[in-house]
Order: sequence, then C-alpha cells, then structure tokens
Amino acid sequence: MTLLDRFLAGDRVALAKVISFVEDRSEGYDQLLARIFSGGRRAYRVGLTGPPGAGKSSLVNRLAVLLSDQNLKVGIIAVDPTSPFSGGALLGDRVRMQALYGRQNIFIRSMATRGSSGGLAAATKDVCVVLEGFGFDVILVETVGVGQIELDVASVCDSVVVVFVPESGDSIQAMKSGLMEIADVFCLNKSDRPGAERIKAELESILDVQRQVRSTSRGASSAPWEIPVMQTVAIRDTGISELWSAVERHRLYRNQADPAGYRSVRARSDLVLTLTELANDQLEKTLFDTDHLDRAVEQIVSGHADPYSIARQLFETWRRGRT
Amino acid sequence: MTLLDRFLAGDRVALAKVISFVEDRSEGYDQLLARIFSGGRRAYRVGLTGPPGAGKSSLVNRLAVLLSDQNLKVGIIAVDPTSPFSGGALLGDRVRMQALYGRQNIFIRSMATRGSSGGLAAATKDVCVVLEGFGFDVILVETVGVGQIELDVASVCDSVVVVFVPESGDSIQAMKSGLMEIADVFCLNKSDRPGAERIKAELESILDVQRQVRSTSRGASSAPWEIPVMQTVAIRDTGISELWSAVERHRLYRNQADPAGYRSVRARSDLVLTLTELANDQLEKTLFDTDHLDRAVEQIVSGHADPYSIARQLFETWRRGRT
Repeated sequence: MTLLDRFLAGDRVALAKVISFVEDRSEGYDQLLARIFSGGRRAYRVGLTGPPGAGKSSLVNRLAVLLSDQNLKVGIIAVDPTSPFSGGALLGDRVRMQALYGRQNIFIRSMATRGSSGGLAAATKDVCVVLEGFGFDVILVETVGVGQIELDVASVCDSVVVVFVPESGDSIQAMKSGLMEIADVFCLNKSDRPGAERIKAELESILDVQRQVRSTSRGASSAPWEIPVMQTVAIRDTGISELWSAVERHRLYRNQADPAGYRSVRARSDLVLTLTELANDQLEKTLFDTDHLDRAVEQIVSGHADPYSIARQLFETWRRGRT
Repeated sequence: MTLLDRFLAGDRVALAKVISFVEDRSEGYDQLLARIFSGGRRAYRVGLTGPPGAGKSSLVNRLAVLLSDQNLKVGIIAVDPTSPFSGGALLGDRVRMQALYGRQNIFIRSMATRGSSGGLAAATKDVCVVLEGFGFDVILVETVGVGQIELDVASVCDSVVVVFVPESGDSIQAMKSGLMEIADVFCLNKSDRPGAERIKAELESILDVQRQVRSTSRGASSAPWEIPVMQTVAIRDTGISELWSAVERHRLYRNQADPAGYRSVRARSDLVLTLTELANDQLEKTLFDTDHLDRAVEQIVSGHADPYSIARQLFETWRRGRT
C-alpha cells in the first residue's frame, strides 16, 4: 500500500507522514495535495489568535473536547511558538494537553515556524487541505497574534476568534492596529478577573463606533456582521459552548450572505497563496542555488553592481528558462 | 530638480517621498533604489525586538538620543504595530517621542504592516537602503518579537537586540522557541523591578548550556560570540550606553571574525530577499490580475479542478510569458 492509500484508508500514522511531506515541501508535495484535495467537502477552519498568555491553547483544548463530544472530528494546528501544543509552553500546560491525545477524533499538529510568514500561511493552508482530505470536520488553527503572521494565517481561516484578557491593556492597543480588522468574534478569556467588565465595555464602544462609520460609508446594504464579544474562563470550562455558538453564527452568516461569492473569494485567496508558494519554491530550487547567484553576490560585494539591477537581470534570465 | 536630485541634496521631504515610493512598490521603485544604492558605505542596522510592553520604543528613543549626541545620524524604522513610533501606543508614549522629532540628525519612519511578512522584511531592507543612501550612520529597526516576523526582519539587521522584562516569564518561554536563535545581545529592560536578578540568572544559565553544546559540536574553532545580557531602565536612561557598547562589541566581532565572509553573507541574504520580492511583485502584476486566474477559481469552485494542478499550469504558462 502506498502512503496515499494508507492515508485514504484512515491511517493516522500515514496522516502524520503526509503532513510532514507537505510541510517540508518534499519533491512532489503539490501532486500529492492535488490527489488529496477534496473538491466539494471542506472542513470549517477557525483561527484563534491573541497575545501570549491569553489562554488560547486552553480555549482550543476546551473547544476540541466540546466538538469531539458532538462526534465531530477536530484537527488542531498550532503555529504559535508559545503554545503548549507546539511544545513552547510550561510543563503544566503540556500535561493538561495530554487529555486530548487519547481521543481518536482529535488530531494535534504543531507547525514549524521556519520559513517566511507567507510560506507559513501557505503551509498551514496545505495542512488544512490534508486534514480535510482525511475527513476532519473542524480545524482549529492557533497562532500568536501580535505581528504580521496572524493576518497571513487568518487569511486561510473561515472565522477568526481574537482572544484577549482583562490584564492586557496592551491588547486593546494591539487590536486597534491590526487584530481588529481580522476578528470575526472577540473572546475575553479569564473574564472572572478584575477589569473584565471595563475592558469588555471599552471594546464594545470601539466596535460601536466602527459599526457607525461602516453603516454611514456603505449605505443601506445588507446587514453587516456584528462582531460579538464573548466571555470565557477556559480553565473552568465556562462560556465555551457560547463561544462556539458565536463561531457557528458567523459561519451561518457567511454562508447565507453570499455563499457563491464567499466560496469564490476563499478559493481565490487559497489559489493565490498556492501560486506564490510555488513560485518561491521554484525560485529557490532553480535560482538561489546557482553559480549565477554566487557571481552576483561577488559583484555586489566588490561594488561593481547594485542588488536591484542584478535581481532584475537574474529574474528575467530565470523566467526565460536559461538558468 | 527631480525627486532623486532633491534626495541626494539632503532634502528630508524628498527622503520621506522616496521612502513612500519604495514602500508602496510604485512602478520603477527598484530602478530608483539601484541609483540610490551606495555600494561600499553602509549604515549599521540594529534590530530591536521583544514582546509588547517590554519598552522597546523607550530604548530606541534613548539610543537615538545617545547616538545623536555623538553626532551620528540615526534612522528609526518602526515595524511594531504597538510602537508609539508607528502610532499604535498610548498618547503618553507618543508625547515622549515628540522630543526626537525636532532633531535634525534623527529620522523616524513607521512601516505599514500590510502585505506578507516576507514582503515586510524586503520593504524594511529597502527603506534601510534609502536611509543609507541619504547618509544615515545607524538604523534602529523596532519590531514586535513574538511571531515569525522578527526572524524575517532580523535577517536584514547586522545586530539584533532582544528585549525582555522581569515580569514576563512568558518571554523566556518565547525566547526558548525562536528569539534565542536570533539574539546577538539580550537586554533586560525595567531591570529595577522585582525578579530581575532571577530572570537574568535563568537566561544566563540557558546561554551557558548553549555555549557548551556549541563548543562541543564545533570543536576548537575561532572563539564564538558570547551573547551578553545587558540591564537597562530605559525610562530612567540607565544602562543605555552600556547597551550600545555591547552592540558595538558585536559589530567589531562580526567585522573581525570574517569581514569578507560576513559582507558576502549579508549581500547574499539581501539579494535573495530582493529577488523574492521582485518575483512576487511580477506574479502579482502579471498573473493575479488576469482572466486566467478568474477562470481557474471558477473551475475550483465548481469542483472541476484542484488548486495545486491549476497553480502549476498557471505558473508554467506565466513563466513562458504567455499571460
């Protein structure tokens, strides 16, 4: 039996191997993905992002158990270097995660953070495709939300939950500048701590202002999605099903608002990501390892050329297939 | 006078315009960069990264004043969405920054965080080239260090300072998984707070272990760089010149250890970044806007094709210049 056969027969060891093969961009990974790709059926991809220490992994943990109890198959992808799923967090956290590993309908995978962020988003998307092909219903993608990466990784998800905590006045600041734009659902975790009500009110007033600005600029079009602010205490399993209901409402909203349009936007962004990755992959394999590049570097170091003109020459030569 | 003439004549308004032109990837930006590129002379690029709230902006502020007082021209690039330099932080922080704006030998620029992280690193490198061409001696690049982005942006810097604070036990965790590998100098800011000595000791013991592992695996080669752990209290201007001395020692180390090799590694990584950016730019302009892509999306949505085979077809067609 080939790896693909075993994969299609539901072998979890084969699943893990296929993911590694795809993640490593091994020769022929895209042909393998082409065969795994399951046209119509798609898992629902939910991104969870937020600052380190917001409790994203605990939330993912609780959501996975909730969905697993509903007989849904749940894939977890951790692209957060501080996540216990990816081995970055304290021992205690990792011990708590052990409970998940025994469940047959939960699969956990951490993504290496090497490569560029764009490459990481493409790899995350591809691992989602593998999990979909294996028959997972929901994929939870955990990523740390304080830089550019969450924007890239969020682009592969259908719904994005932005997680924050009462302590982090900083997080509200961060949200104003980036996270705000990608959030479909806000989740105030550790909401039994002091200041929770205040920070929730603060966030809701920001959302209110945005809503007014939007409704003025867009005119009386179809009702826009109103980003809910949910409250959870993940370690006590409080508010988890309510959080999931909010995600489900967003899913419904997306599908009802413009189902064809949504699928096509999604397909387009996935395709562009795939193309970019393929182009960079080809560049790397056929151009970055040639003598051309070494000679160009010498010219730049010796002051005989500037990198921009050299780059254009190398690129044009490469594109015409002469390297 | 053309924009380039005014730029070369030292006009700061022209500098700002050139940066925008380059950052926006306006038509011909690479030709402009080719003319600005100053072969031999290079500014020293120092990256400062670390979690939000570690006080990176205050450090950058103090370092800029220190260097400016030594008659050095200092460029500041903020790619951190939570930085006061990029407008993301609290009003009080921004007010503190006002002091810098009056200084003729300090120039501050915030980078937009749109585009991919790889694209952001390339744009940061290009803005460095512009600042170098304008005659800056030192460029301080501030970025938030909790995801992938700091690895990409760090790749354009000569020395990387990783900033952390006593409170953040998380930050040590984060360092273990990523930041550790890019740090040339550690800076424990707010080191007058409780726990500073403990966390410094913890970090130094980790560094000790790494050093032993390294010396065993590498044999008795040239002395490796020993990452120092510096202590600062940026808001009280404490430890700033010591921090800068550590950066200077690293600069010296790099230049003495293998000057030609270092310049060539640097040139190679810059060139690869430039090439990747150029390729993605060309992809975007010539492929992502064509009817080909629209038709491909339709095929995928209707279930008649998979994105991986389609991507390869589109890419090959594009490379052969038929789109």
